[in-house]
Amino acid sequence: MKLYDYSGAPNPRRVKIFAAEKGIELELINCDMAKREHKSDEFLKKNPSGKIPVLELDDGRCISESVAICRYLESIVPDPNLFGNDPFELSFIESRNRHIELELWTQIGTSWVNGPIVGSLGIFDQIPDAKTASDKNVNAYYKRLDAEFASSKFVAGGRYSIADITLLSAIDFASQMVDLKPQADLLNLARWHKEINKRPSSNS
Amino acid sequence: MKLYDYSGAPNPRRVKIFAAEKGIELELINCDMAKREHKSDEFLKKNPSGKIPVLELDDGRCISESVAICRYLESIVPDPNLFGNDPFELSFIESRNRHIELELWTQIGTSWVNGPIVGSLGIFDQIPDAKTASDKNVNAYYKRLDAEFASSKFVAGGRYSIADITLLSAIDFASQMVDLKPQADLLNLARWHKEINKRPSSNS
Repeated sequence: MKLYDYSGAPNPRRVKIFAAEKGIELELINCDMAKREHKSDEFLKKNPSGKIPVLELDDGRCISESVAICRYLESIVPDPNLFGNDPFELSFIESRNRHIELELWTQIGTSWVNGPIVGSLGIFDQIPDAKTASDKNVNAYYKRLDAEFASSKFVAGGRYSIADITLLSAIDFASQMVDLKPQADLLNLARWHKEINKRPSSNS
Repeated sequence: MKLYDYSGAPNPRRVKIFAAEKGIELELINCDMAKREHKSDEFLKKNPSGKIPVLELDDGRCISESVAICRYLESIVPDPNLFGNDPFELSFIESRNRHIELELWTQIGTSWVNGPIVGSLGIFDQIPDAKTASDKNVNAYYKRLDAEFASSKFVAGGRYSIADITLLSAIDFASQMVDLKPQADLLNLARWHKEINKRPSSNS
């Protein structure tokens, strides 16, 4: 299976960490976002949304969206389980994963597209007020996470799941590329990050 | 099972349509958003994100996030299948559902929070430029959908799925509450809407 990837992009990283946890080897294909290859006619046939990652199966069928790709990998290699083992756990992990995506990732994304690196490309009309609001939302969400990690070892309770992968990728991208590193006094969040970062998969 | 609901809110509607397709009866509990009941201490115990819908099981455990609730319902009542039957279909339907959520719903949401109804509540600092951009993105996405429906009967190919429920709820909310009705010349999108709207579940 081929994974269309771009070094440093946070969403392909989610799939690479997930695959590493499963021991699945993926052939990485560089899709050069700096050259806008993800918007080329050829790539839009693989994913009409023009985004990476895309997983291309050996028969040529393609799957887009990180979580959908991870669910495919979970279906074909069930262990270790990262999505949940019974109806309640399946839905609980999904809800936690979605909280991180919809309440943190979206805000980091808004700060990113309205920030200096994307600004220097001159592709989008930027909205400075949107970045001010999303920066504030990101920092408020970090505080919420810190409070949650006071009583919860992982994002979805007592065990590692796809929701931890989603949060790790979000925080690392925000810290390295958007100048939104969590405040140093959020000790529970820092403890979680340190533990997750030790896993060999996190080097993906 | 109890569903925390608010009449006219689009996300609880997604769950109500999904449950109607499955023939599952849910006890609807009104969570009065106008009175900010979704932000009360009592409700935040059910969903720390302070959002509806929430499904409360008979043993008191709660599940938040529409898609996570629907996945729980799919697990306990598998037929008719609405999430996919095999690894590829499961991931394909999820990817399509996510395209609608991440590329259309998020933009409708930005137009909503920066629009006149929310503005009249005086709760948020609104960003008019953000609404201008999201209105444009919504209309561009409607055009993309219209092109896709030229060769695809449903959102995820040849059969009805959760992705159609997501799109119906998005378009109806955008049309009725955000003044973002699809342009009348998008005939394929209109055909899809008319067909989906005929299903008894769509009255939910």
